[in-house]
Amino acid sequence: MTDTIDYAAHLRRVRETAPLVHNITNHVAMNPMANILLALGASPAMAHAPEEVAEFARMAGALTINIGTLSQSWLEAMVLAARAAREAATPWVLDPVAVGASAFRRDACARLLGLAPTVIRGNASEILALAGRGGAGRGVDSSDPIAAAEDAAVALARDHGTVVALTGEVDRVTDGRGIVRVFGGSALMTRVTAIGCGLTGVVGSFVAGGAPVTDATISALASYAVAGEWAARAATGPGSFWAPFVDALYTLTPEDLATAAQVSWHEAP
Amino acid sequence: MTDTIDYAAHLRRVRETAPLVHNITNHVAMNPMANILLALGASPAMAHAPEEVAEFARMAGALTINIGTLSQSWLEAMVLAARAAREAATPWVLDPVAVGASAFRRDACARLLGLAPTVIRGNASEILALAGRGGAGRGVDSSDPIAAAEDAAVALARDHGTVVALTGEVDRVTDGRGIVRVFGGSALMTRVTAIGCGLTGVVGSFVAGGAPVTDATISALASYAVAGEWAARAATGPGSFWAPFVDALYTLTPEDLATAAQVSWHEAP
Amino acid sequence: MTDTIDYAAHLRRVRETAPLVHNITNHVAMNPMANILLALGASPAMAHAPEEVAEFARMAGALTINIGTLSQSWLEAMVLAARAAREAATPWVLDPVAVGASAFRRDACARLLGLAPTVIRGNASEILALAGRGGAGRGVDSSDPIAAAEDAAVALARDHGTVVALTGEVDRVTDGRGIVRVFGGSALMTRVTAIGCGLTGVVGSFVAGGAPVTDATISALASYAVAGEWAARAATGPGSFWAPFVDALYTLTPEDLATAAQVSWHEAP
Repeated sequence: MTDTIDYAAHLRRVRETAPLVHNITNHVAMNPMANILLALGASPAMAHAPEEVAEFARMAGALTINIGTLSQSWLEAMVLAARAAREAATPWVLDPVAVGASAFRRDACARLLGLAPTVIRGNASEILALAGRGGAGRGVDSSDPIAAAEDAAVALARDHGTVVALTGEVDRVTDGRGIVRVFGGSALMTRVTAIGCGLTGVVGSFVAGGAPVTDATISALASYAVAGEWAARAATGPGSFWAPFVDALYTLTPEDLATAAQVSWHEAP
Repeated sequence: MTDTIDYAAHLRRVRETAPLVHNITNHVAMNPMANILLALGASPAMAHAPEEVAEFARMAGALTINIGTLSQSWLEAMVLAARAAREAATPWVLDPVAVGASAFRRDACARLLGLAPTVIRGNASEILALAGRGGAGRGVDSSDPIAAAEDAAVALARDHGTVVALTGEVDRVTDGRGIVRVFGGSALMTRVTAIGCGLTGVVGSFVAGGAPVTDATISALASYAVAGEWAARAATGPGSFWAPFVDALYTLTPEDLATAAQVSWHEAP
Repeated sequence: MTDTIDYAAHLRRVRETAPLVHNITNHVAMNPMANILLALGASPAMAHAPEEVAEFARMAGALTINIGTLSQSWLEAMVLAARAAREAATPWVLDPVAVGASAFRRDACARLLGLAPTVIRGNASEILALAGRGGAGRGVDSSDPIAAAEDAAVALARDHGTVVALTGEVDRVTDGRGIVRVFGGSALMTRVTAIGCGLTGVVGSFVAGGAPVTDATISALASYAVAGEWAARAATGPGSFWAPFVDALYTLTPEDLATAAQVSWHEAP
């Protein structure tokens, strides 16, 4: 975790390599996530059949797994895909949507955590629940302040040797030693469904192909935050936020990102 | 069924309580429905696994069930969720999409009707088919004029002790005794997919937490109609309708609604 | 395959008959495909349960099958629907998404090809893979130039007695004897997910009800290309492309299409 990230280089790599990102995500997020990744410059593939997920995960530059609309058969496919990713050294990102809301989700995440996700991306309630520190939430939306989940994020990163992206009003990224805060975005992003799920795909795009995980994750969050800020200027509500947000991900240049990224660095307690 | 509804109070309650609304809906509607509910101020949760639907239905302020892209395994989850809702006194809304189009849908709706939905929301063909009075339709879109389904709506409400929201050019709400017509909206709403499904979620948001069902349902339809009218002024087609429609649900104030709601009252025959 | 198509008449027929188009498509495309068909003037129905797909396929003017997010249970429903379509002489369109990416998809398409699709609509990598000439692609997006797939499209059309719509920068339609190139569209269309899947539904809408297949398919592609060109003029990125694209499909008149359609005719080698 260094305090000098070449943001431009990270975004340039995504644009130049157009990484294939295999996503097993929820039914709500599939369409917007694919549009977000296409606008960014990645190549999304959605596939969830147990018969083929290992092939996709091996072929892909990164895999993302999101339990938003989980079912037993999809969970089996997620496990197969995560195993194949691990064997092929494909980085993979876990998005533990609403993990605190049911026993089914808690058990599913316990299995998936055992398969060594490269990055975990969640909101405050999800990170708290995943770390076993409460944070059941009420459903999908976070009901905990983000600062309250910072320690849980650090503990999760240490216990599982992973990078944790805790997202909300001010995002946090931690590798268990340092904590980076990423500023920007817009409150409207909490009023548009699957914006968080889409970010998981963006993280996948940045960490694809063996990029340095922590720096790539911070760059992904910074890109999203800048695009969100730009879009909010053009929006009068959550409905009119979407088009300029996707356009911003498409038009954002590496130089723009280098100029606009706002982060601060902290030592983990 | 009173003729003086405090529309503003109903919308204010949704905004202040941000009810968790659990939706088991179709694949087409999941994303727009979640966006509609977030814009309105509710907190949508989509979950369909038999392992967890009862937990969600008990935790939620309301449940909605939509058979648009039904399958046998989802139907089992719908039955479990509706049962849990009934036991927990969680109000639930049935959306019998294209019920007349196949034996599978007719049988599914017969089972779901037996679980005492709090509200039924459908178009003319669906309400006619559900009441066993023809109206097979040709598929998903209504092919019957809305006036022709008014008697069927009243009969359905009486037979099942439920409130029926029959929606189309001029919406009807009936508790089996009175009929309220709700005016407004836009013809473009029939050219945007899942607008009806989204309304089912809005009804769920308004009836959540034990609000008076008939008045809350009328308030939900009035909110939707006003938002539709506003959006149509900004739209040049169904593509450009969506953003201002979602923005309108977000910016609509209780006072706006009280001023703009247009309803008329009638005795049921 | 004639060189004088009455494009206006083909679009007018879609508008006047509002054909019911039954689609078994992928989770990413369901919503945008339904919106595209509604804007065009067709009546889309999404249904995938084995219990009811035959009923829908028989009732519909056309069936479309897309393997984008395939699973074993959906494949069984696709086979049932395609069989019912064949028995009822309902035209049906196959969209072999990412067929080269896994053995599961190759086997599925082999089964579906055996059920005599009326039209096959795919990108260069998909048509190459389907014709057994390589073109594995890397995932969902085409990685082969369209010209390289022209011979494969002709062979596929001859071998299976079908019409092939090979789409990309300049679309091709072939019945195995002639090749028509359809010009127009916009590069932004490759950056918006499910645009190709939506086109499959548009082809279904045009061939519905026994229209002359080749000319109807060319008219469908020409309509899409004109709408894409119009939308690109109003768009600043893939996010702002969607609304004017759907509006263009809605506002495009038969006369507009007759004026704006750009095609060239060639003999197959």
